[in-house]
This record gives sequence, structure tokens and C-alpha cells, in this order.
Amino acid sequence: MIDLSPLLRPASIAVIGASADAAKVGGMPLRLLREYGYAGRIHAVNPKAQEVQGVRAVPSLDALDEPVDLAIVAVPAQAAPDAIAQMARNRTRAAVLFTAGFAETGDAGSALQQSVTRMAGEAGITLLGPNCLGLMNLRERVYATFSPVALMGTPPVGSVALVSQSGAFGAYAFALAREAGLGLSHWITTGNEAGVQVADAIAWLAGDPQTHVILAYLEGCTDGANMRRALAAARAAGKPVVVTKVGTTATGARAAQSHTASLAGEDAVYQAVFDEYGVHRARTLEEFFRLGHALSKGRRPCSRATAIVTVSGGVGIMMADRAEALALTLPPLPVEHGERILARIPFASTANPIDVTGQVVAQPDVLADALAGAAQCGAYGSVVAFVAGGGNVPAAWEAIQRAVERVAASPDPVPLLFSGLVDETKRHWLEAHGALVFREPVHAMECIATLLRAEETANVRHAEAGAGALPVAPAVSVPLPASVPDGVASLDEAEAMGLLADAGIAVAPLRVAAMAEEAVQAAAQLGYPVALKLRSRHVLHKSDIGGVHLRLSDADAVRQAFGAIADAARRAMLPGGLEGVVVAKMLDGWGEVIVGLRRDPVFGPVMMTGLGGTGVELGRTMAFGVTPLSHERARTMLEESGVARLLNGHRGKPVLSLDAAASTLVAVSRLGTGLGDALDTLEINPFIVTAEGLVAADAVITLDPRADTPGG
Amino acid sequence: MIDLSPLLRPASIAVIGASADAAKVGGMPLRLLREYGYAGRIHAVNPKAQEVQGVRAVPSLDALDEPVDLAIVAVPAQAAPDAIAQMARNRTRAAVLFTAGFAETGDAGSALQQSVTRMAGEAGITLLGPNCLGLMNLRERVYATFSPVALMGTPPVGSVALVSQSGAFGAYAFALAREAGLGLSHWITTGNEAGVQVADAIAWLAGDPQTHVILAYLEGCTDGANMRRALAAARAAGKPVVVTKVGTTATGARAAQSHTASLAGEDAVYQAVFDEYGVHRARTLEEFFRLGHALSKGRRPCSRATAIVTVSGGVGIMMADRAEALALTLPPLPVEHGERILARIPFASTANPIDVTGQVVAQPDVLADALAGAAQCGAYGSVVAFVAGGGNVPAAWEAIQRAVERVAASPDPVPLLFSGLVDETKRHWLEAHGALVFREPVHAMECIATLLRAEETANVRHAEAGAGALPVAPAVSVPLPASVPDGVASLDEAEAMGLLADAGIAVAPLRVAAMAEEAVQAAAQLGYPVALKLRSRHVLHKSDIGGVHLRLSDADAVRQAFGAIADAARRAMLPGGLEGVVVAKMLDGWGEVIVGLRRDPVFGPVMMTGLGGTGVELGRTMAFGVTPLSHERARTMLEESGVARLLNGHRGKPVLSLDAAASTLVAVSRLGTGLGDALDTLEINPFIVTAEGLVAADAVITLDPRADTPGG
Repeated sequence: MIDLSPLLRPASIAVIGASADAAKVGGMPLRLLREYGYAGRIHAVNPKAQEVQGVRAVPSLDALDEPVDLAIVAVPAQAAPDAIAQMARNRTRAAVLFTAGFAETGDAGSALQQSVTRMAGEAGITLLGPNCLGLMNLRERVYATFSPVALMGTPPVGSVALVSQSGAFGAYAFALAREAGLGLSHWITTGNEAGVQVADAIAWLAGDPQTHVILAYLEGCTDGANMRRALAAARAAGKPVVVTKVGTTATGARAAQSHTASLAGEDAVYQAVFDEYGVHRARTLEEFFRLGHALSKGRRPCSRATAIVTVSGGVGIMMADRAEALALTLPPLPVEHGERILARIPFASTANPIDVTGQVVAQPDVLADALAGAAQCGAYGSVVAFVAGGGNVPAAWEAIQRAVERVAASPDPVPLLFSGLVDETKRHWLEAHGALVFREPVHAMECIATLLRAEETANVRHAEAGAGALPVAPAVSVPLPASVPDGVASLDEAEAMGLLADAGIAVAPLRVAAMAEEAVQAAAQLGYPVALKLRSRHVLHKSDIGGVHLRLSDADAVRQAFGAIADAARRAMLPGGLEGVVVAKMLDGWGEVIVGLRRDPVFGPVMMTGLGGTGVELGRTMAFGVTPLSHERARTMLEESGVARLLNGHRGKPVLSLDAAASTLVAVSRLGTGLGDALDTLEINPFIVTAEGLVAADAVITLDPRADTPGG
Repeated sequence: MIDLSPLLRPASIAVIGASADAAKVGGMPLRLLREYGYAGRIHAVNPKAQEVQGVRAVPSLDALDEPVDLAIVAVPAQAAPDAIAQMARNRTRAAVLFTAGFAETGDAGSALQQSVTRMAGEAGITLLGPNCLGLMNLRERVYATFSPVALMGTPPVGSVALVSQSGAFGAYAFALAREAGLGLSHWITTGNEAGVQVADAIAWLAGDPQTHVILAYLEGCTDGANMRRALAAARAAGKPVVVTKVGTTATGARAAQSHTASLAGEDAVYQAVFDEYGVHRARTLEEFFRLGHALSKGRRPCSRATAIVTVSGGVGIMMADRAEALALTLPPLPVEHGERILARIPFASTANPIDVTGQVVAQPDVLADALAGAAQCGAYGSVVAFVAGGGNVPAAWEAIQRAVERVAASPDPVPLLFSGLVDETKRHWLEAHGALVFREPVHAMECIATLLRAEETANVRHAEAGAGALPVAPAVSVPLPASVPDGVASLDEAEAMGLLADAGIAVAPLRVAAMAEEAVQAAAQLGYPVALKLRSRHVLHKSDIGGVHLRLSDADAVRQAFGAIADAARRAMLPGGLEGVVVAKMLDGWGEVIVGLRRDPVFGPVMMTGLGGTGVELGRTMAFGVTPLSHERARTMLEESGVARLLNGHRGKPVLSLDAAASTLVAVSRLGTGLGDALDTLEINPFIVTAEGLVAADAVITLDPRADTPGG
């Protein structure tokens, strides 16, 4: 983990390229540091001035008699190497490189960035940027930024850290946080990420006692393992991470040989990673802040049981609809509480949603009782209320206040969430008393689901995740079969199935045969019905060229199929002609499952699974998981993809073990990672769902032409 | 269509149960009518007073010497029949029944409601309510409501009508409209809907020249055909309808015999209806108003080509992601416009998103040029801008104003949508100049899609829809086969397939056979391979009991299968034992499609289709369409369900005609509606996708036990 203390908690700061003009890149940080009262030592570096904005100037860092913690670099790109050289001599610990004109501008810029990065690395300097807006530590008044956004005032000091790859996004988010009164601890923009990446910032913030919630804006990441370690660290620390990941549609370009690989873009892989670590994903700016706000202020529900208290039956139904979609439960109000309400408002509804009706304007005590009663009866993990314009009716508002105070005073108060028209002053009062406030009733429901998820994620706290390790042990290296010649693009089916069998995965019994009569003999040994399939390294989708004949029930059918496959091989003009066929026993099952592994450019080998059969490319859900795959994630993938339903007594079939199926996925993952760089894709299509569990009926393994192929 | 003029545009109003206390149900409307200056004649009816709130009171309507247009009824439920009787004598044209205590309270209330409804019907009185908050016509100051919400001020008079089944929802929506400055024409709450339904209000508003956009809140509707006519009328009038339909999860209770019927609740049917008529569905209150606002104020885009102009690259990507999901296109900025921007801001990006960068704060003219240039170059149907906090920077704001004015002055201005921090005053200025403003950049993108959809829907304007007719001709009545005895629950497969064939639907060649050798003979006639299936009226899912044997390739296999089916029939203890088998030719195809028809309690017979095969209950999309099914809707269903992809050259297979497949769906719809009330469900599972198109391989038809079964 990169220690960001010199960046975020420097005892001294030097501004290289310090300017007297506060509107300039080299002037703004000096102005902000002084105006906001940064308590450390400030140095201005400017060879042409004696003094800049009241700070004594030195011509270079060489003139200082102490190593500085943080250098802010506001010189043109071409002058950056000299600045880094000064830092190296000064033994500067960290640098923020504002300057643009590096990798984002093309080859020359990339070369310059590489050289600057290397210099900084050799000197042990932690580098933020280049092409970034810098950083802020609000509590310690470190304003190492040239964004004018901080000039117009700052949000309150709080416990939410904001990390953004994009400077402009970061600046806007800062303005929104100020407007919403969202308390920030740190604000970090990473720009070109020559040194510090968003993931590094997340990892450091996971250990920062001032930060309780991390909001991250991401355009992409180059080091998937680093990101996973960071998210694991945040999870282990019990700190929720909210991510806005953009660029989800720029995925069409990447070609994928395996046809299932084309089913989902890499965004699905990011999503799998986010899911694995309990990351909250926001799709809009508004949601980004709403989640951040709720996670930083909200109490955590202890159960999915939710009480809806509403003054409008209609809005109550709307909230109940959303509750079901979010898997929240709505148990009825305990009878004695219901009776107290009905005694006073006979046409109220005390099922859940609890509809106290607009009558509470005349009988506000009933509202207070319903709210506090639901919160304190022990039946609910949280209470969501829709009060319409009730916040503006004095008697109703007093009732709400009474209820909120009663709940806050209880030993272990449940979350209270309000929606309706509530003005700013009242919102602040409610939040100060532990309640959350939303304009939109549906958002209040969604917030409970988010808080629950944060609570569940925090409860995981894998011990190994705390150390930044991956959740499962690394795989043992697996050599390719000796039969595989150097330089081929793929294994043939028999070789692929052999690897699976060696890895402990159940496979359909099979034989290879070069001649028709040999195939007939093999079929007799295996027992009918059998499948006959072209054996070739050159054809990945055998059925597309007529190379697959299923459900052959006798010797004649096998002979006929052999002839047809020989014809197909001829028509396809395979190099070397027909090498032979695979004869496999037909399995008796009731469904097909695809399991695959392909390389993601960011996260490396990625597992996927989904329902097989005809409709595979036609819009069915594939679930993804990064490798090494944990057993827990494998179970989740089976559930997400709908495969679990096929295993769970589907239409009168036996109930199969979900754990056994998950173990099969883990075994495939272990085989895939064991094959190492040699492997490009691995696809088992189909696994047949049989009474004995998942049995592989066909497999394709392709090799990476760039890797050294270990020939056995 | 019910004429709502007497309700919404009454020349005279009587308040029955008029009260001197304005806080009372009978006092509030009198106060509102007088305070807001209703221009018609007002009568107070109160047997105990000479005068109420300054209005001369009469003991009953009998004392009036003119028929009143609208009577507001504010008496207890038990007094309602007398009030209706007075109206009948007075020849009152319409009534609003505020009173609760009717059908919502149980059997006695239902009986009272029925009696009141019948009385009103006989007297020709248009009835709104009971158990409703009444109505308002803002332009003509008709405040026939007892909701105090109107006391606190009203929204501006405008072109958006708000119809709500729920009173409390309606009142809250009214308050939100006032707060947002959303201009309303009418506000109508329908309550128990003894007379006027939400659909009736939509239909009348479709013809109201003051109303351009209709917002409707719906909990359910009892008359699907009425709703369809109303939505067709609104579409024909080019008036967008935004619906919030709640209660989407209360569907689990309804049992469904056909197993595909359990795939989706009735909400999917509502959605199909909404889709068919271009209704905009809002899932949150916030969206309900946002869509209403945008549709009432926004210019309509003439194409999907959208320009994104942004000061933040990151937010631009976020908007581009959403654009792709919404099927908006982002063509690049024409070169000459791009060059003008790059000449001044060299590091801008002139691809689309057009990223003018934060530099526009220093060079605001570039922002103005980018906005106006994109809007006027002819390449785009709309321009969406993210200006971050630029609205607060005077120079940038002036540039935005210049651009907006330039665009507004052009002959056929394209929609301009802004997102970012824009205060209320500036928002009003922008809206007054034809631009729309959003806090959330993603919402601005979504708004373009909504406006486009409204434009496309308006362009449909079916001539027949204008007359309120359904889009296709009614089906010809189809008798059940003579072989079907009275009182059975379902047809056997041969009968069902026969009906399909008679309806012009391609079916797999088949024979029935009672004995094994008869089956062998049939198989020989049909040609191998064949399928052998149990023939029974008592088993809907034959394969579940071992009653289906597929791909039999010779006589021995047929004999064996016959024996196995006989065993299965014995094990299942079928009444009457084995009646026989169906021998069907196996079809050579590459996919399975399900087509079904079931009864929806609201919309009647509903067609559905989806991909078949193993995964049918495992989460694949089914698409729905109400009957009679139009050819156009059938095509849409094939696309929505993913079936179209299976027809369109799937994995090297032939490209099949989507129109031919749609015609097959229409033929099934026609058969289903032709069978009339006798039919309960009809399911063809599977249709095999063959080179000759869709061919039915199995069908189940169940009969409605409540209907008279016409025995041939």
C-alpha cells in the first residue's frame, strides 16, 4: 500500500512555480493554503522573485535546508523533470503534478510522463498526477489544488472522502457537497495516475480514522489486483465505498474469440468486482451524493423487516412495490400497536404499509405514536415514513419531533427515514437527531437497502481481506498435456476434457477414434446413445460446420455420422483433413449450463456462468467473478445467472447441491489460473445438469499466442 | 366517452351539506370557490341555515328554480341516496361525492355504493367518487374539493392535467406542482370510481383544448377496454400521458394453471398496454413531475442525433453511457465547427461529447459558440449541455444566454437542455427561452429520449384510434371441435393442433394412434424421426410424467416408447387409462419459441411470447400484447422477447421473415379471441424455428370451467 500521509498530511509544502497571481495555477494553492490557514511550513519556489504572496521565495528546492513533505508542481511539462530532480536532491517525500501535456496528449507526452515517473520512483517520491487538480485535506487545511472551486467556500469537515480520476468531475462534486452540506474529510483527484491511482487512495483512506465513507469516481483502472486489494481493505475496515464508474459503453471494440465472451462487456466484470466487495454503485451524480450522505449519516438497520408509515395510501403502495423489488420485508404492525391507532382513527390501515391517513393533521398524536411505536416495538429493522406536506403543519411537525426524540433516546435506535416536503431547517433538525430525509419516497426505500448492504458487507470483514490478500489460495501450476504441439491456438476436445477430468471435474465418458469402426467399438464400450464429434484443434464451434452428431442410438447411426463428419471436414478444408472423432456418452440431464473463463484486460482471468442451450446469445444473464474465484462468489454467480433455479428441484427434478456446483466452478477457476499465461479462454459448453450434478459434455480451451506454450 | 363538462366546466354549483366552518368537508369548497372567484352561480344546500359563508342557503335542491350543473355532496354516506334523489328531481347534470364509507369499507358500503350509482345512472348524473377529494379546473376557478392543499396557494394555470385515483396522492402532487411551478389545467381525483374512472378523465382531457399533457396516478383499473380507448384517444390527439401505476407487486395471489402464465405478473400486461399507446411510465414521484414538466415545456427533437456539450470530460462520458443505453446517437461535430473551437481551446475535444473543458470560464465565447454551433449546424436533433457551476460565473452565464437567444431566434430551434448548478431565476429565464434545465446530467439525457418518444407516438396518430376503436378487426367466432365433450378442462393435443391448423398456423405433421403397431404405422407414414406423446385431456405437462419421447428413429424405438408411455399412464393413474398417443414428425430447427394466450382480469385475453427451451421459467423475458393483437405490436413483442434475434440469421442459420412470425402471433390471437369465453389458456410450446418459419410442435388449450362449453 502506498502511504499517502506525505501527500495528505504534509508538515511542509513547497510550491514550485509559485505565482503572485492567485488566478494562476501556481498562485491558487498559495492563496488557498494561506487563506484557509494551513498550519505547516509553506515555501514558494520561483527563481525570478524574492517573495510571492507574502511568502519568502527561493530559486529552487536546493536553497531549502529541510526536506519538504509535499511539493506542488505548477511548472510547464518540459520543466517537470528539473522539478523532480530538485525534489530528489531535497529528499522531498511527495509531489502533486498539476501540469497537463503528458500521456493525455500522445506519444511524446507519454514518454515524458514515463521519464518523470521513473525519476520520482527512483527518488522514492509519491506522485499524484500529472494532469490533475490536486488534493485537499479539509480538517488539516491542506489545499494543494489550483481549482477555484475551493475559493467559493468549502463543505463542512466530515467523514466522507471524495476520490476522482477526473478533475472537473471532482470540482463539481466538491461544489455539490458544499451545497448539500455533505461533510468531507479529503478530496483527491488522480488525473493521469502516473503514481497514485484511485485504488491507492481508497486503500489509504480505508485506514484513515477521519474517513468513514469513500466516494470514488472512476473512468477505468489499469491494475485490477490493486483495485481488489483496495476494496478488500475498505470492506475489512467496515467503510462503505460508493463508486461512479463511467465509460461502460466503450467496450464494443475488444474482440473476443469465444462466443460467450461477447455476451457482456467488461462493465459486467467491474460490476462483479464491485458486487464481490459490497461496493455501492451509483449511476447518476444525484445518486452518488445521496448514497454518500446516507451512508455517512444513517443508522444501520439490523434486519430487512421494514415499517412503512404513510399519510397517503397511494404513496404507501408505491413504497411497498419498491420494498419488494429490494427484497425488504413488510411484516404487519403488532396487534396492540395497531389497535391503539384504530381506536383513534378507525379508517386507518394497520397492515404494513401503516396508513394513518391525512387525518393525522387533525390527530397528530397518532402519527407520533405510529412512528415511535413501529420503531420501538422490536418488529422492524427500520421505519420509513411518508409525511407529504405534514412537515409544514405545525402540529404534525411537533408530533414528528416528539417521535424522533423518543426513538433517539431508546437504547439501540432503529433507522428512521422521512420523505415528503421538509424544509432545510427541519431537515437539519431531523438529521441532527439521527433521522434521514428524502424528497422522494422511493429513494427512502432504496436507502434502507443500501444501508442494509453496508451493514452486511461490514459483517463479512474477512480476516484475509484485512491483510489485502485475495480471498482464496493461489492455484497450483498446471502443465498443458504432452500431446499439445508448440504454437497451436487451441486444444482439441479430448485434451481439454482430459484437463478437466484431471482437475477433478466430472466429464462425460469419451473415447477418441480415427476410423468409423473404431468409433463403433468405442460407442459399444461407452454404451448407447452416444455423440460423435469432430476432433480438431482448428474448429472451435464444431456444430457450425456439421461436426456434431448427437443421440446416436446404434452402430449404423455411428457409421453414418462418421461419414457425415468426414464430409464436413472435407468441406471445411481442415489442414491435415479429418484427424478423428470424439465419441462421448450422451448424458441424461434436464438442462445446460455454460461455464467459461476469459481474460479481462484489467482484472485478468474472469470466470463466467449462465444458462446454456439455444438462447445463450439471446439475452440471458451471464454472471461474472474474478479469479481466484471464492466459493462464496461462485454460489452468488449461480444465483445471479439463474443456474441455481435449474439445480433446485426444477420442474420435479431432484434438488442438487448448490455447494457442489459452486465447487465445480471453483475447480474450473483453479484449472484456469493454474494454466497461467498460456491460457486464453476456457469454455465448458455445455455442462449437463444431471442427477449426479454438473457433468461437462464439451469443452474448448484456446491458448494465448503471445505466451510461451509449455509443451508438456 | 363520458362528457365531463358538467363536472369540470359547470355554469352553476350547489354544495349539499354546505357548512359555515371552512375547515369542514362541506365548508372548504364554498370557501375556495368564493376566495378564488368562481364566476358561475353558487348554491348552498343546508336545511338548518338561511345563509352559509355569505351564500343564501336552501333546504334542498328542490327549492332551486334551475337545474344545477354540478352538485358537491358533503353529507354522510347514509344521506347520499337522498342527495341523489334531490339531484334527480332537480335534473342536476353531475355530482362529486366526497363522502367515504362506501365500497372501501366492506359489503354494506358496497351495497350502498351500488344503489347510489344506480340512482345516479338512472337520473343521467355523471358521478365522481365517492371517497374522493374532488376536482379543480384552475383556469375557470372551479374548486370542487375539500382538500386544504388549495388554500395554501395554487400552481400557475397551465396545460398539464393531473388525474389521481388516490386523493392523498393527488393533494401531495398538487403541492409539488405548486412548488415546482408546474402549470396545471385540471386536477381530478376519482376515488372509488363508481362513475368516472381515471380512463374517462384521460379520454375527456384528450379532447380538452386547455390540456396538452396528462399525468395520471393509477392503482388499478377495472375496465381494460375503457383504458385502451382512453389511451388511444390521447395518442390520436398527440397528447403525452405520464402514468404512475402502483400495486405492481400484489400479483402473486392470482393462480394460473398454465406454467408460463406464472412468468410475469399482470404488471407486465399493464406495461404492454402502456407501451402500445406510447404512455410514459414514471416509477418515482420525482420522475412523474420531471416528465410532466419536460413534456409540457420541451421542444421535440427531430432525430436521435444528440450533441453533448460539456465542461467536464467525466460527466460527458457519463452522459454518453446513458445515451447509448437510450439508443440516442452521438455523431461527431462537423469539422468546421470543431476547428473553430480548437483554434481557441487546443486541448478541447470536438468529438461528441464535445468537451470544451473548464477553460470556458476564461473563454466563455467558446461555450456560446459550441452550444449555438451544435444547435444550428443541422447535424443534431437536440443539444444537451453540462455547465457544472458555470451558471454562477457571470461571463459564462452571459455566454449561455447569448447561445440560448441565438438558438431561440432560429427558424426551427432544436431542444436545448442544460444540466448543472443553475439557480431558480436563471432556470426561469432559460425555460422562458425554450430551454430545459436539470440538476442531474443523466436526467437531461433521459428527457431527450422521452421527448423523442412523445414525438414518435404523436406521429403515429392512428386514424382508427381517434375514433376510440381498437387497432384490429374483431376475430371471427371459432367453435370447439365436435369431439370435445361437455365439461372437460382441456383439449387433447391432437384437437388443439387441429384448431391451430384450421387457423392457418403451421403445425408439425401428426397422427393419433391407440395401439403400438398403429403408432409404428403412423411413424412410417410421417417419416422418421418422430416423437411419441401421451394423448390425454388430463395431463397438461406430459413430459413431467414421462409422457413424451422425442427423436425416435425406428420402429423398435416407437414400440419401446409406446410401452413406456403406457407405463407412465398407469403410474399416473389417469382416469380411463391410456387413451392413445400422438405420433408427430420431429422438426428440424434451431430454436424454440413459446407463444401463449391467457386471460388477464383487467385486459382480457393477453398474448405472450418468449424464447423456449429449458430455461423458460428461469428468468427469460416474455413479451406481452393485449388482444386483438395488431401486427405492429406482434413485431414489437418478437423484438422485446429476443425471439427476433433467433429469426434473424442466428449463428449462420437462414434469415426468416419477422413479418411472417408476427402474422403467426396474430393468427394465434385471432384463434384465441375467436374461441371466446370458452377459452381459458392457449399455449404453443414449443414453436420450432425452422427454415420454413415457426412450426407448432405441441399445444395445450384449457377451457374456462365457468363458460358454457359449446360442444361443436
